[in-house]
Amino acid sequence: MKRDLPFSKVYTLLEPGPVVLLTTRGKDGPNVMTMSWHTMMEFEPPLVGCVISNRNYSFGLLMATKECVINIPTVDLAEKVVGCGNTSGEKLDKFRKFGLTTKAAGVVRAPLIAECYANLECRVIDTSKVAKYGFFVMEIVAARIDPSVKNPRTIHHFGMGNFMVAGKRIKLPSRMK
Amino acid sequence: MKRDLPFSKVYTLLEPGPVVLLTTRGKDGPNVMTMSWHTMMEFEPPLVGCVISNRNYSFGLLMATKECVINIPTVDLAEKVVGCGNTSGEKLDKFRKFGLTTKAAGVVRAPLIAECYANLECRVIDTSKVAKYGFFVMEIVAARIDPSVKNPRTIHHFGMGNFMVAGKRIKLPSRMK
Repeated sequence: MKRDLPFSKVYTLLEPGPVVLLTTRGKDGPNVMTMSWHTMMEFEPPLVGCVISNRNYSFGLLMATKECVINIPTVDLAEKVVGCGNTSGEKLDKFRKFGLTTKAAGVVRAPLIAECYANLECRVIDTSKVAKYGFFVMEIVAARIDPSVKNPRTIHHFGMGNFMVAGKRIKLPSRMK
Repeated sequence: MKRDLPFSKVYTLLEPGPVVLLTTRGKDGPNVMTMSWHTMMEFEPPLVGCVISNRNYSFGLLMATKECVINIPTVDLAEKVVGCGNTSGEKLDKFRKFGLTTKAAGVVRAPLIAECYANLECRVIDTSKVAKYGFFVMEIVAARIDPSVKNPRTIHHFGMGNFMVAGKRIKLPSRMK
């Protein structure tokens, strides 16, 4: 069971750089792509920027619907994440192929992925740098998280199917937000 | 001793989301700030986007010089990284305070940090989204890495001085770049 995450804490999920699954809604059903090129842009309301190539099937769906969900997987889903990154939703129902469960989101019409421990519902608010860089600015309009996942073992891609798995945690005295 | 890293491999350093130290050159000497809000934007030539608030002293230096170095620290430098994030270069020589060594970079006039295992020299190429989001687009014009650091234990911030340290590595069959 997931609970709402305060918007002020959303940055703590994306700032460490996890690989995410981005879901969109198309005419013929939902779609999902794997993504690592994203950054937080504002704390509250939470803004996230991400780069999506127009070679991805999701690109057109995101431009058309201006809505998506950023789903954060943990290492137990790594094979499915790679599978979603190696295939195109133009020809394949990735959810069925890789055994991922879609669920209706709360605010946007794109679906979320039930197996991911966090789901961030997004609306595209700025496409002015899409033509030049494929860079979308999105506002997170709903955020839910599985509170039972205490130290999510997120995965972090460094190329060619190599991933680093989130390791131990340390805490240092800090005034940094 | 560091060696050149091919531009085509730069994304493997930044894509996993490490905390970085950004160095700039000011009239009164070098400056450094801690940063986690960055994303790769293109493979080659490597482009990186990052968010820097105009409340940071580095903001003005970067706008004036359009040059910086992104230095990637490992966990042994974590206390210095937090120190740099909790202080302002407007009032303090952070390099002296935290024992970080500046060295001349190869291409840009901003200094690099010797203790960091990777140094990415950057030129700002697009400031059109700085006013709205503090978002800079930069091209990496030189990249050097310490080849003796095989599995860099980078640190990944998730708020309030809490960090995840890069953990074990896994490799999955993938056609993903």
